Amino acid sequence: MQTTKFFLKDKDVPKKWYNLAADLPTPLLPPLGPDGKPITPDMLKPVFPENLIEQEVSTKRWIDIPEEILEILYRWRPTPLRRAIYLEKYLKTPARIYYKDESVSPAGSHKTNTSIPQAWYNKKFGIKKLTTETGAGQWGCALAFACQLVGLECKVYMVRVSFEQKPMRKTMMQVWGAKCLASPSEFTQAGRDILKKMPDTPGSLGIAISEAVEDAVSDKTGQTRYSLGSVLNHVLLHQTIIGLEAKKQLAIAKEKKVDVVIGCAGGGSNFGGIAFPFAYDKIHGKKITIIPVESASCPKMTRGKFSYDFGDVSGMTPLLAMMTLGHQFIPAPIHAGGLRYHAMAPLVSQGIVEGLLTPKAYDQAQAYEAALLWAKTEGFICAPETSHAIACVIDEAKKAKAEGKQKVILFNYSGHGLMDLVGYDKYLSGQLKGYCLPEDELIDTLKTLEGFPKANARKTGKW
Amino acid sequence: MQTTKFFLKDKDVPKKWYNLAADLPTPLLPPLGPDGKPITPDMLKPVFPENLIEQEVSTKRWIDIPEEILEILYRWRPTPLRRAIYLEKYLKTPARIYYKDESVSPAGSHKTNTSIPQAWYNKKFGIKKLTTETGAGQWGCALAFACQLVGLECKVYMVRVSFEQKPMRKTMMQVWGAKCLASPSEFTQAGRDILKKMPDTPGSLGIAISEAVEDAVSDKTGQTRYSLGSVLNHVLLHQTIIGLEAKKQLAIAKEKKVDVVIGCAGGGSNFGGIAFPFAYDKIHGKKITIIPVESASCPKMTRGKFSYDFGDVSGMTPLLAMMTLGHQFIPAPIHAGGLRYHAMAPLVSQGIVEGLLTPKAYDQAQAYEAALLWAKTEGFICAPETSHAIACVIDEAKKAKAEGKQKVILFNYSGHGLMDLVGYDKYLSGQLKGYCLPEDELIDTLKTLEGFPKANARKTGKW
Repeated sequence: MQTTKFFLKDKDVPKKWYNLAADLPTPLLPPLGPDGKPITPDMLKPVFPENLIEQEVSTKRWIDIPEEILEILYRWRPTPLRRAIYLEKYLKTPARIYYKDESVSPAGSHKTNTSIPQAWYNKKFGIKKLTTETGAGQWGCALAFACQLVGLECKVYMVRVSFEQKPMRKTMMQVWGAKCLASPSEFTQAGRDILKKMPDTPGSLGIAISEAVEDAVSDKTGQTRYSLGSVLNHVLLHQTIIGLEAKKQLAIAKEKKVDVVIGCAGGGSNFGGIAFPFAYDKIHGKKITIIPVESASCPKMTRGKFSYDFGDVSGMTPLLAMMTLGHQFIPAPIHAGGLRYHAMAPLVSQGIVEGLLTPKAYDQAQAYEAALLWAKTEGFICAPETSHAIACVIDEAKKAKAEGKQKVILFNYSGHGLMDLVGYDKYLSGQLKGYCLPEDELIDTLKTLEGFPKANARKTGKW
Repeated sequence: MQTTKFFLKDKDVPKKWYNLAADLPTPLLPPLGPDGKPITPDMLKPVFPENLIEQEVSTKRWIDIPEEILEILYRWRPTPLRRAIYLEKYLKTPARIYYKDESVSPAGSHKTNTSIPQAWYNKKFGIKKLTTETGAGQWGCALAFACQLVGLECKVYMVRVSFEQKPMRKTMMQVWGAKCLASPSEFTQAGRDILKKMPDTPGSLGIAISEAVEDAVSDKTGQTRYSLGSVLNHVLLHQTIIGLEAKKQLAIAKEKKVDVVIGCAGGGSNFGGIAFPFAYDKIHGKKITIIPVESASCPKMTRGKFSYDFGDVSGMTPLLAMMTLGHQFIPAPIHAGGLRYHAMAPLVSQGIVEGLLTPKAYDQAQAYEAALLWAKTEGFICAPETSHAIACVIDEAKKAKAEGKQKVILFNYSGHGLMDLVGYDKYLSGQLKGYCLPEDELIDTLKTLEGFPKANARKTGKW
């Protein structure tokens, strides 16, 4: 009998989050306002509560996780670390493949690791209601769940086309007591303006963000705030509980070192969650390959620019220093909705520039092929985003075989695919092809960055 | 910090299944053939492999679980035992509520506990292919998954209306390499006959069973067999791993006794799985209330007859001694598809007659109300079948409060509801009502049992 599951006791759940901003060789570049000057924490107050703004700008290495947040996370945390021995056997690789199973959360993905703290800090600050946007629905579900447990109202603006195509995501949010509206809606000025011009628009994430932010800042009582599911520093901070737990579990599995750490990366929170605690080790001398995996249809990390850019399509957010394809880039409609974001979190982006992280891109045909092999060997059905990480894991395991090395590979199993079976169906019936962004489109979209402030981070040359 | 999750180590997974047939006060009544005489194991050979027929008729108390089966079950077993402290707090009950979480299996329910052994024993016996029927798709998914891992072909006849309404279930089966056909199909004589008469029929479980059995027995090479997901003795046997694990976990939770054990019951395998190991304790003197929970729309246990009856609508199976509403009963189209079976497993049925088990019925409006309270307090979205058990748990917890007793309540959380959100949507939008079988319909349907052989089991008067 071979043990394939490694559990922690509740009491061994990490009590602090890890903040990579404390350890990056170059200090993180500040967000800039419309005037090109660094924005102050005060300017964020209408949008986020002060306690989360503090975390957003913090350079403290370790930040305490309040006991009340841990009490909620205990419902599904610590999550299991599993070893994929059946995939290993199939590949005949000498590598040992471990995965952190974040799919066990009630909302089905890692997103709850930040939705719970965000809801809790808002509640603590006296906020009564959170607004957010959601594309495919993962984040909307996670925030609805968190608001239900913490005791906040929740309003989710869901991109109309997803609202109509994925009605079950809306139902999940409603089960957890949230209000879910198709965006654009009649409820906000931004929504009404768009509907007037384009009554039949399918909506977009950019529009939905505009609506959610407007809804939050226009509450005259000051009791509504906005919540974001990825990209920002405090969101990635909350996710580091994944990697911190994984470290303890690898020790239980008697692994002394990790050679490769892999996570898919859309906005960067899932990847940062598993990777940053290992990036700390790498900064402090350990030899680890750390790979954020993106979709070849939205290759901001492998083919984008490190530049200041807007976080949203309509240019409402501050300018952030990111690996980006330009904020007006509209990626192809691949099934991994979570990977369809034009830019990468500042913390991950700077890690790439400094050579700490080495991104790779896979197209969705490769990803579905990997997902089917995963289901065939390990038995579980993964999310379309997760399948991109698995495609990379398979390549790394084959490489270890070619090199004859007993490498330890760790990846984040960010979510299950039970709400996303349509993509599997299309792949199985031959209707789904790989898609890689053509060079001319890339050149076109990067033009939107002309004239933006330059972003520089030191290339350490160390890694 | 209060511990709410109780894990077993892999090595502590039970190594034997428990067979209630060894301990029932009255020996189990034998199945009868078309001539009214007990059928012999030989007569079952075209349908099931001999090793499973042996288990079906065994009266041995403990049956070894082969190590190779355990190796597969370890992928998700032991499943967690959890304590529902948030529901307890909400109800202000002195009761301690525990639930065994079977929703963590890759196919999402307890069904894999028997699909794996069934596939393995068939493979061992030299079988190459399994056929089965499925209604809502839970069982079809579990068998597809098992055949994929064990290395068998799998063909699932899915009731046409479900095939069309729940296309994602079909996709799941295909991801695991199974062939899934809408039933009635052109592939079997039974299917073709029906299609000729009723080209637009939505299909039924009865028709699908006929097709799956015909497919199995008509394979001239003798390498195909049929597989059933509930009702039969060997199926319930395989599920007892649930209750056996739960016992060990309650000991870890430092509970010395259990007062109430609850499981929803459609064909009886989920209920038998959690309950039989505790029924053993009750037979041997412990005071435990054991409640199988059915749908009020299909009340075979609380309002049916204990009689010999067919297992299927078309009368192809042997006659089994069961609590039944008559094999031609067509229940209302409630969302808990797994509870829409006209009869109850012989082992559970006889336990009811003997007074060992005390069934209760809930209608689906009560069940959805319970499911929403569960999502609000515990955070998880449960299957519509499971919600019936939760409705009963809530009543028992309220009773404990009224009595001022610190009871321990255990129930089986048989599956998650992520593939069944349509019912939640209907409930939330006010389109779903409770439904209780009217008395005149009950009288009508029971008439189909007239002239069937009598079934008697001793009412012990002890419980």
